[in-house]
Amino acid sequence: MTTPSPAPLAFDLDGTLSRRAQSMTASAIREILKVTQQPDVISFAGGLPAPELFPLDEVRAASNRVLDVYGPAALQYSTTEGHAPLREWIGAQAGIPARNVQIVTGSQQGLDLLGKVLIDEGDVVLVEAPTYLGALQSFQPYLPRYVQVPTDDGGIDVDALEEVLKTTRAKLLYAVPNFQNPTGRTLSAERRRRLVELTAQHGVLLIEDDPYGQLRFTGEAAPSLYSLGLDLHGDADRNHVIYSSSFSKTLVPGLRDAWVQAAAPIINKLIQAKQGADLHTPTFNQMIIAELVDSVLPRQIERVRQAYGERARLMLERIHADFPAGVQSTTPEGGMFLWLTLPQGVDTQALLPRAVARKVAYVPGSPFYALGGGENTMRLSYSNATHEQITRGIHALGDTLREALNGD
Amino acid sequence: MTTPSPAPLAFDLDGTLSRRAQSMTASAIREILKVTQQPDVISFAGGLPAPELFPLDEVRAASNRVLDVYGPAALQYSTTEGHAPLREWIGAQAGIPARNVQIVTGSQQGLDLLGKVLIDEGDVVLVEAPTYLGALQSFQPYLPRYVQVPTDDGGIDVDALEEVLKTTRAKLLYAVPNFQNPTGRTLSAERRRRLVELTAQHGVLLIEDDPYGQLRFTGEAAPSLYSLGLDLHGDADRNHVIYSSSFSKTLVPGLRDAWVQAAAPIINKLIQAKQGADLHTPTFNQMIIAELVDSVLPRQIERVRQAYGERARLMLERIHADFPAGVQSTTPEGGMFLWLTLPQGVDTQALLPRAVARKVAYVPGSPFYALGGGENTMRLSYSNATHEQITRGIHALGDTLREALNGD
Repeated sequence: MTTPSPAPLAFDLDGTLSRRAQSMTASAIREILKVTQQPDVISFAGGLPAPELFPLDEVRAASNRVLDVYGPAALQYSTTEGHAPLREWIGAQAGIPARNVQIVTGSQQGLDLLGKVLIDEGDVVLVEAPTYLGALQSFQPYLPRYVQVPTDDGGIDVDALEEVLKTTRAKLLYAVPNFQNPTGRTLSAERRRRLVELTAQHGVLLIEDDPYGQLRFTGEAAPSLYSLGLDLHGDADRNHVIYSSSFSKTLVPGLRDAWVQAAAPIINKLIQAKQGADLHTPTFNQMIIAELVDSVLPRQIERVRQAYGERARLMLERIHADFPAGVQSTTPEGGMFLWLTLPQGVDTQALLPRAVARKVAYVPGSPFYALGGGENTMRLSYSNATHEQITRGIHALGDTLREALNGD
Repeated sequence: MTTPSPAPLAFDLDGTLSRRAQSMTASAIREILKVTQQPDVISFAGGLPAPELFPLDEVRAASNRVLDVYGPAALQYSTTEGHAPLREWIGAQAGIPARNVQIVTGSQQGLDLLGKVLIDEGDVVLVEAPTYLGALQSFQPYLPRYVQVPTDDGGIDVDALEEVLKTTRAKLLYAVPNFQNPTGRTLSAERRRRLVELTAQHGVLLIEDDPYGQLRFTGEAAPSLYSLGLDLHGDADRNHVIYSSSFSKTLVPGLRDAWVQAAAPIINKLIQAKQGADLHTPTFNQMIIAELVDSVLPRQIERVRQAYGERARLMLERIHADFPAGVQSTTPEGGMFLWLTLPQGVDTQALLPRAVARKVAYVPGSPFYALGGGENTMRLSYSNATHEQITRGIHALGDTLREALNGD
């Protein structure tokens, strides 16, 4: 036996990190949330579903039923692809075979696995400006090069995209076409068709991230990019559109059940990647969700739609009443978010402490831009606030903005 | 609106895969399991815990209690680091602060995240020969270069390791010191000290994967590599040993609850990587496990130990009685596996169909070698077989081996 070293060894643990780890940063939003989580602050900063709407009793009953029906199999290892009845249900909804459906542990995992199997270092990933911050975080470890595509109130500007595609060899385009996080904007039906065709013509994969699509409270639904891809290619195994969605916003997020729909060459690699990533999504949780999709999900969606619709309408009404001129808001038709654009020169990051001092919080818009920008923007979430909080919070935010615009 | 293209577009979906995706393969074991899952085949091939031992009623009670106590918070998003009471309990067991504990979605995810934050393409990863196949699968997407370290019945050959370290600049060494998967071997106490010191001296991180350590049914426990690293460095935030374990083998696998213990520079990057990988491990599942760790886990471990000990002893007894001369078996002191070495020239992969014809299955040993080898070896699992299956299955396997050794 050797003698232990006399003194602890100096070991440069920081020096052991991979290049990709060095490129990762803590989520700007999570850091901001810590600041804004004082109990007396009205927070429009988080992106949380309303917990008081969760079907708690139904989840309890489903948990017990799953243990009754499946016994120990509900707690055993299971297949990487996912619980067969759940995959079949999802496939039937989309009009595709279950084998084109991969269950994932939250749609965040779907994005991570897609990054893993698709992105080589330096590959160009096209993103909306602004885009979902979580997608940037999932893709970042694979060291892509981001190129931003301009957006307006109708979503991605497809004319601008066409110009980008003429000069840029891109691997994939990532889009949230329904009630986008962070802007609440929705891509118009006409632009959807052009987006699917343009990306197909240029050999660019199209990832459609759609966690909110079911939560439309006004206006008319447009076809999914995925379904347009199916129409174009005529076969789920040739579709260049990859679809990602989740039960987090319609049922509950804490079970982490989501899915990806993709063509065989991609889904087969996703399965292999998931074997190495977490073997499978928890068996019990998938079975619970499968118990709820027919009996509870439809009325739950109705309930959430109605509540969020009321909250969004109230927030917009109060914004129009309380905010100074020169502040523009998007008008979401569904989902959980709206987006404010302030006059140029106002820095919402710098403004946040003054808002928090007035007991209201938001997320500054800049972190949602892959390449920077949007310093004069902010995201507000109405999904997890009472009517009273919305009224008071928007009033306080109006005061903060007025103060800022008056140059105090 | 543009006119849809007249014909479906040819889109080379296979050509969109990343280099790392091209390096991935389906788990050889999962493919083998499909072949061996005929209902009348006695399978020693899988690595499943015994489901009849699962504490089903206790999980049911805990699920209901969690929903009573936490309400909707049990189904809401939660922190990336993990459920605080569970992290505190794990930290207390290891004598470290909770902040050095990251909850992960199965220890497979811990290995994936460690690969992500540590391994750059071409980095040398030292592995036992043979080693846990799942670790190779987790690390592979990060494109390491594997170097094998010889092992014998006492685990890693530390003298051979010392020679390797003299000529090889390695990033990390991955080891399963207790009842290793696949061999069932345990690293001796003396070698543990040298392993920890050698790796520290050479600036090589040491990942200790310990899913089975609690399942010792004979012999005496040796200190964990992690605790020896703590002794050496005197501080959890300077420990070069990273510890990974799980509730999958002691409680149930289907909830996917596991953890990693590591120094701050590494744990902080794991948190960031996990934000992008799945945001957090399911809230509900972590709370269920936290309900069980004091009340159920200790007696559950006793129960599993006793059952697996009986199964292992019976399997060894039947091997000695029924197998032809020239077949060597390891003698596990715990865990779920033992390892057979046949005379040189016998190919266990080629032999498998003949075993399945005799209604018994195993896993050929070769896939457990990062760089190939072990064609004359196989892994047997006794954890999920009845005494009657063990007796009949080993008899049938003995006949298969005798036939092979007689050159049929």
